[in-house]
Amino acid sequence: MLNDLREQVLEANLELVRRGLVLYTFGNASGISRADGLVVIKPSGVPYDRMTASDLVVTDLEGRIVEGSLRPSSDLPTHLAIYRAFPAAGGVVHTHSTYATAWAQARRGIPCLGTTHADYFRGPVPVTGEMSAEEISSAYEWNTGQAIIRRFENLDPTEIPGVLVAGHGPFTWGRSALEAAHNAVILEELARVAATTLALNPAAPELANVWRDKHFLRKHGPQATYGQK
Amino acid sequence: MLNDLREQVLEANLELVRRGLVLYTFGNASGISRADGLVVIKPSGVPYDRMTASDLVVTDLEGRIVEGSLRPSSDLPTHLAIYRAFPAAGGVVHTHSTYATAWAQARRGIPCLGTTHADYFRGPVPVTGEMSAEEISSAYEWNTGQAIIRRFENLDPTEIPGVLVAGHGPFTWGRSALEAAHNAVILEELARVAATTLALNPAAPELANVWRDKHFLRKHGPQATYGQK
Amino acid sequence: MLNDLREQVLEANLELVRRGLVLYTFGNASGISRADGLVVIKPSGVPYDRMTASDLVVTDLEGRIVEGSLRPSSDLPTHLAIYRAFPAAGGVVHTHSTYATAWAQARRGIPCLGTTHADYFRGPVPVTGEMSAEEISSAYEWNTGQAIIRRFENLDPTEIPGVLVAGHGPFTWGRSALEAAHNAVILEELARVAATTLALNPAAPELANVWRDKHFLRKHGPQATYGQK
Amino acid sequence: MLNDLREQVLEANLELVRRGLVLYTFGNASGISRADGLVVIKPSGVPYDRMTASDLVVTDLEGRIVEGSLRPSSDLPTHLAIYRAFPAAGGVVHTHSTYATAWAQARRGIPCLGTTHADYFRGPVPVTGEMSAEEISSAYEWNTGQAIIRRFENLDPTEIPGVLVAGHGPFTWGRSALEAAHNAVILEELARVAATTLALNPAAPELANVWRDKHFLRKHGPQATYGQK
Repeated sequence: MLNDLREQVLEANLELVRRGLVLYTFGNASGISRADGLVVIKPSGVPYDRMTASDLVVTDLEGRIVEGSLRPSSDLPTHLAIYRAFPAAGGVVHTHSTYATAWAQARRGIPCLGTTHADYFRGPVPVTGEMSAEEISSAYEWNTGQAIIRRFENLDPTEIPGVLVAGHGPFTWGRSALEAAHNAVILEELARVAATTLALNPAAPELANVWRDKHFLRKHGPQATYGQK
Repeated sequence: MLNDLREQVLEANLELVRRGLVLYTFGNASGISRADGLVVIKPSGVPYDRMTASDLVVTDLEGRIVEGSLRPSSDLPTHLAIYRAFPAAGGVVHTHSTYATAWAQARRGIPCLGTTHADYFRGPVPVTGEMSAEEISSAYEWNTGQAIIRRFENLDPTEIPGVLVAGHGPFTWGRSALEAAHNAVILEELARVAATTLALNPAAPELANVWRDKHFLRKHGPQATYGQK
Repeated sequence: MLNDLREQVLEANLELVRRGLVLYTFGNASGISRADGLVVIKPSGVPYDRMTASDLVVTDLEGRIVEGSLRPSSDLPTHLAIYRAFPAAGGVVHTHSTYATAWAQARRGIPCLGTTHADYFRGPVPVTGEMSAEEISSAYEWNTGQAIIRRFENLDPTEIPGVLVAGHGPFTWGRSALEAAHNAVILEELARVAATTLALNPAAPELANVWRDKHFLRKHGPQATYGQK
Repeated sequence: MLNDLREQVLEANLELVRRGLVLYTFGNASGISRADGLVVIKPSGVPYDRMTASDLVVTDLEGRIVEGSLRPSSDLPTHLAIYRAFPAAGGVVHTHSTYATAWAQARRGIPCLGTTHADYFRGPVPVTGEMSAEEISSAYEWNTGQAIIRRFENLDPTEIPGVLVAGHGPFTWGRSALEAAHNAVILEELARVAATTLALNPAAPELANVWRDKHFLRKHGPQATYGQK
């Protein structure tokens, strides 16, 4: 079932390994078939180098396992919350990549300090608010998703394809699982360049909006000119 | 003798190389057979790429060589002290990995700043007190072990599977040599993320206990839900 | 057409990948045939690992495509501006490499803090001034080139073979595409060493001119003694 | 002539590449035959991946070429000065490795902050004084050697097997070319750990002398117990 999606979600998971974003079994990628209302996600705690497409777990949007003999990633409820709130999301990725996690632990959103950032995020990468003891104690992973959604009340998730969960780490998304993984790789690099920038100049200015939009819209949306037709 | 344990201890030593934790002959991993009261440890100063399972040295808990023609790692007495004080330890690893060593040299314990940390350590990674000139002058390696044990007077080594020896570097342990090596890799990453976090925000808060425990207990102990059954 | 130049420009692009200067389709290298008045440049958004010499795009100095079925890099007008203003430039490279980009975002030129720097740049690596909203809104890439040229009003581009575009990233050049790529690699390392130097000593002094020139002229110009005859 | 020494010096040069200490043609290693009064050194500006043992240049202690058709490394006079002043030196290495060069540019010696350092250097890694305009203008490379020798007036080069040349970079030595290369790799790591340590705690203390000597003498000298007999 959903063999193409399985292959793509496997590939998205392996991309995280290839790019050095995950240690051991850290991280997870998923993809959704909107037509079927089904999600394909990495199993929990399975080493990447032994993972096959048939190890992936298929669930519905309530998290009920539809296919697969392994337990899904424990972060599944966060993925589901994102899919339900952001209809354009076709894939979701979570990592504990070094620099993005450091910003999340520092409780700082990543300011848009340059064109590399603006090529992918039309504004700062936001950091969520703190979760309450109640939210942590029960339905923790689902509530993590709710914290993300609250943070996006006035943000467009197609223009800001990722977030830092305070004290935890980054989640990214995209039109597909592969694009979500791509965005996770980019976010880690943006986080690293921004940390280095602020070490050199703590008062480094954010990009002007006209400049930020120039770059973002050169790569995204109907007027995009970057890449091939 | 102890061929399976030899193979596992060899593998634990090689894991340190694969993960970039050791330079040249730095570092050492050991494992214990509690049934036999025997420890298998890396020989001193032998290059990892030529090391075989039969090069490993077997000693008893007094450090007497039971099998092997090579000298054991000079840190053997520290390993033995840990095995004698922490009955749950099945393996011990020592490295001079970059970031963990920097925290040890800085005389700072690593605060629990995020969920990555809490997934493995149920609280800060502690740093030992200073050793006296007497402790350094004689039975130095054994006394290093005693400094570790003193630091754990009010800590549970099954919940905090590692320590920073002030001015020296990290020791980790686990139920097996491989788990101890795994914890050494994780500790290095936690040390790196924490250093980056504090550069971004010197006042970054520690994780609330309820949150820390949520993550630790999701992966460890009888209620663990992470991974496969 | 221009097959040798195509091969060299391909090689220059691949050098950026090999040296870890580019992520995904980031960056671009070009080369010029002064005799023909033609430029060979990377196509826009094509993955490096599938790129062949025949994918490269040939344009004239007005940016009109002379050969090739793919769109050229969107930074083409910046390359053309550099070729038109700096007659000694035989190749141009643009990257978003981590440390050079951080200096560009920090709006700081890289001071000449040591002999490694002086071996390649006879003075600080300059950073451009800010671009106006008008310059960003239309003919942005061409205006980026103009900002570079303005910054070099009193600088010799054969002695300072690169620049940081404020809020954006580095451009380098050289007598050939390969030398431009080489200079991009060197610049990234200089940027990294300088950032580390200033973290250790914010008041680290610049190299005296006599010393800087000693190193620069040992490697460049008619009195060069470095390398083989 | 000197075929074994040629092989060892080639190996020492390649070790610098394998350990990531050099970019392109940066760096150089040499070895000496004290019996013959001859030095074997890397040729100037030759890429490491094409270098063979027969490309190496043999000179006497005055720098006269005895064998070889290529120019020797431009740093040859510094190597010769070291060989003449430090009779125990069998090999010399110079690199521009990132962290050691940053300390050299920062004009800071590397304090002995931990046991990793003390395992190799019995005290801080010293930094040379500034060179005068005269020293730079003529016989620059020889004068670089003199600056090193002046810095060691009250230091023992067998206990401190390396130095930072202010504004330039590290030189290391050892009983052989391979040991000099080994020390260059260690120095780069010490430089990195020390920089990270001081970022975490600018007041991190130096190791007490008794502790420093414990580690140094465990590995070096007649009472060494580290490694195999």
